[in-house]
Amino acid sequence: MSDEAQAPEPRKSGRALRISLDAMGGDFGPSVTVPGAAIALERHPDCEFLLFGRESEINAELDKHPALKARARVIHTYTVVSMDEKPSQALRHGRYKSSMWMAIDAVRKGEADVCCSAGNTGALMVMARFCLRMMPGIDRPALACMWPTARGESIVLDVGASIGATAENLVDMAIMGSAMARIVFDLERPTVGLLNVGVEEIKGVEQVKEAGSILREVNLPNMNYIGFVEGDDIGKGRSDVVVTEGFAGNIALKTAEGTAKQIGDYLKSAIQSSLLAKIGYLFARGAFNALRQKMDPRRVNGAVFLGLNGVVVKSHGGTDALGFASAVDVAYDMAKYDLMAKIGTALAERGEWILPGASSAMVENRADENSADKETGPA
Amino acid sequence: MSDEAQAPEPRKSGRALRISLDAMGGDFGPSVTVPGAAIALERHPDCEFLLFGRESEINAELDKHPALKARARVIHTYTVVSMDEKPSQALRHGRYKSSMWMAIDAVRKGEADVCCSAGNTGALMVMARFCLRMMPGIDRPALACMWPTARGESIVLDVGASIGATAENLVDMAIMGSAMARIVFDLERPTVGLLNVGVEEIKGVEQVKEAGSILREVNLPNMNYIGFVEGDDIGKGRSDVVVTEGFAGNIALKTAEGTAKQIGDYLKSAIQSSLLAKIGYLFARGAFNALRQKMDPRRVNGAVFLGLNGVVVKSHGGTDALGFASAVDVAYDMAKYDLMAKIGTALAERGEWILPGASSAMVENRADENSADKETGPA
Repeated sequence: MSDEAQAPEPRKSGRALRISLDAMGGDFGPSVTVPGAAIALERHPDCEFLLFGRESEINAELDKHPALKARARVIHTYTVVSMDEKPSQALRHGRYKSSMWMAIDAVRKGEADVCCSAGNTGALMVMARFCLRMMPGIDRPALACMWPTARGESIVLDVGASIGATAENLVDMAIMGSAMARIVFDLERPTVGLLNVGVEEIKGVEQVKEAGSILREVNLPNMNYIGFVEGDDIGKGRSDVVVTEGFAGNIALKTAEGTAKQIGDYLKSAIQSSLLAKIGYLFARGAFNALRQKMDPRRVNGAVFLGLNGVVVKSHGGTDALGFASAVDVAYDMAKYDLMAKIGTALAERGEWILPGASSAMVENRADENSADKETGPA
Repeated sequence: MSDEAQAPEPRKSGRALRISLDAMGGDFGPSVTVPGAAIALERHPDCEFLLFGRESEINAELDKHPALKARARVIHTYTVVSMDEKPSQALRHGRYKSSMWMAIDAVRKGEADVCCSAGNTGALMVMARFCLRMMPGIDRPALACMWPTARGESIVLDVGASIGATAENLVDMAIMGSAMARIVFDLERPTVGLLNVGVEEIKGVEQVKEAGSILREVNLPNMNYIGFVEGDDIGKGRSDVVVTEGFAGNIALKTAEGTAKQIGDYLKSAIQSSLLAKIGYLFARGAFNALRQKMDPRRVNGAVFLGLNGVVVKSHGGTDALGFASAVDVAYDMAKYDLMAKIGTALAERGEWILPGASSAMVENRADENSADKETGPA
């Protein structure tokens, strides 16, 4: 990665990369999070874990995973945020003392480099925002998820952290999303598209159009803005990053998940519809397994809350150990390749391009075409 | 249908049900629209057609379909709205004289009962709105599409006619969509859900919450409001009608189409990935054909513009004769079972429930639980 040189030494004060886990989060708690962490540790032997939650439950699982046990510290917390708690309730009863809060707070205190939880999304967002606070210059958090596409994967944000977005919010999301894409896809200048209802410049909502004008005008060094994309362009992988406000983004994500499930069910019943179909399936089993793997939601588990003073990764609540390990992988990468620093740099660059106080569509300094090459060395 | 008795005699002045077609619309013009109409006529021998467009091109196709020729009148128009024209351009050069305009205008003049076009969506909407005008009491048009679900089909609106929506707009859409659902699904009291980002009442945007309160409060006789639904509920078929504003609706629709295409492509390449897989496919071919048919977008072609003083049905531009016939089927049903009267009745009922001038969340008369049974006789 091009920014490695300017990033701090391996970890603050030379210690191993440290991941704090809300071990009680998710539908299954430590029986999934602990073996999930064990899998992630095999992939990344240079990391260590802080496990927050009920000591006895965590230790019972840890005993089955001695390698992880040697790299983990358990911090007992009795209070657990339940999966169906309202965010306000969760904050009231779980602040300062729940496994979720304490896992996040470890990042705030610098004891961990990143936090990962499979807990209640709304509660996690409210607690993360309350505990870590927003980055300077960022109004509101965004949730960025990995989206499997025909070309590989794309990052889509916001998938539901905030409802509605101004043009500035959309520009901020483009910046944060492309910083994340530089890490995840190891790209110098990821392509970014704004989700809209038409590719013609005349269509769509005002905020999206205005954000498009700004992004085109500022032409940031770490982002290749390609214009508007439509709903069906996400799955085609037309851009590495797709930016939209949280209402439409959440609906797009859930609609895609629903459609994938629906077609998977069609496929299953088609295979079981006749003896011939079942025989055919036996022959084609290898191909079907490959397909199943491709459509496996566990592969792309791990959404990232962006815009906070620290990185919090959200795993699906209903996932298994393998799925949770994917989310921990994402957390590991975000810490290892220093997402916070990359976002910080990109925000500073935005600052140079947009005059403070100017109407967001008004930009003084045109991007110098050549400056794009200056910033980004070879990967 | 329960409203048949109060509907006007078979057709105005006893004539056959008449469908006006923009014969030039779509990527292929008369070579698709004419054979498409011929297929639709076989299914509905009681209808007749007005075909607007270039006479020579239409007649060349009509000669191949004598049954249709006997039930069709060709009205020559030289001007054609192209598929990539901007709506404003289309209106400027195509108003009064294009095949699209004249097909719509036939509905306004009462010469046809419904119009169907595979032309440019934006132009069709602008022209329809300009020509037919909005229904009294309706602010803006909505585009309602058929969405294949695990349970069959649902109606989703608005999929892109208008951007943004007030609570009142959403309530109007719920009323219009359920009127359409009563026809399409032959139901007395279709279920209606409001698309939102969470099923908890606390989540989502203000307008959606307010619309939810109104719908719950008024408890209309022809609609069973079931609350909020999420993106993945659409494909599950949780409600017969899903209501949302046009930006999110368009993105949901295109995202679902994109996901279906993406998985279809995965499946294709899985089948071709090995000799065994190909052999398996040969055995399971029957099942795959059933699956393909289930996923065939032509089956559910035909979106309806709602809220205008007349019904205009939009076919996919790139469809073939079979797909266009599906859109004509939709147009036929909307005219035959008098969508306009059903919407009118439902709007009048809404009027009784919501105090004019009251804040939309304030409703005086609570719905009488029993009134639901009064209105709707057995189907």
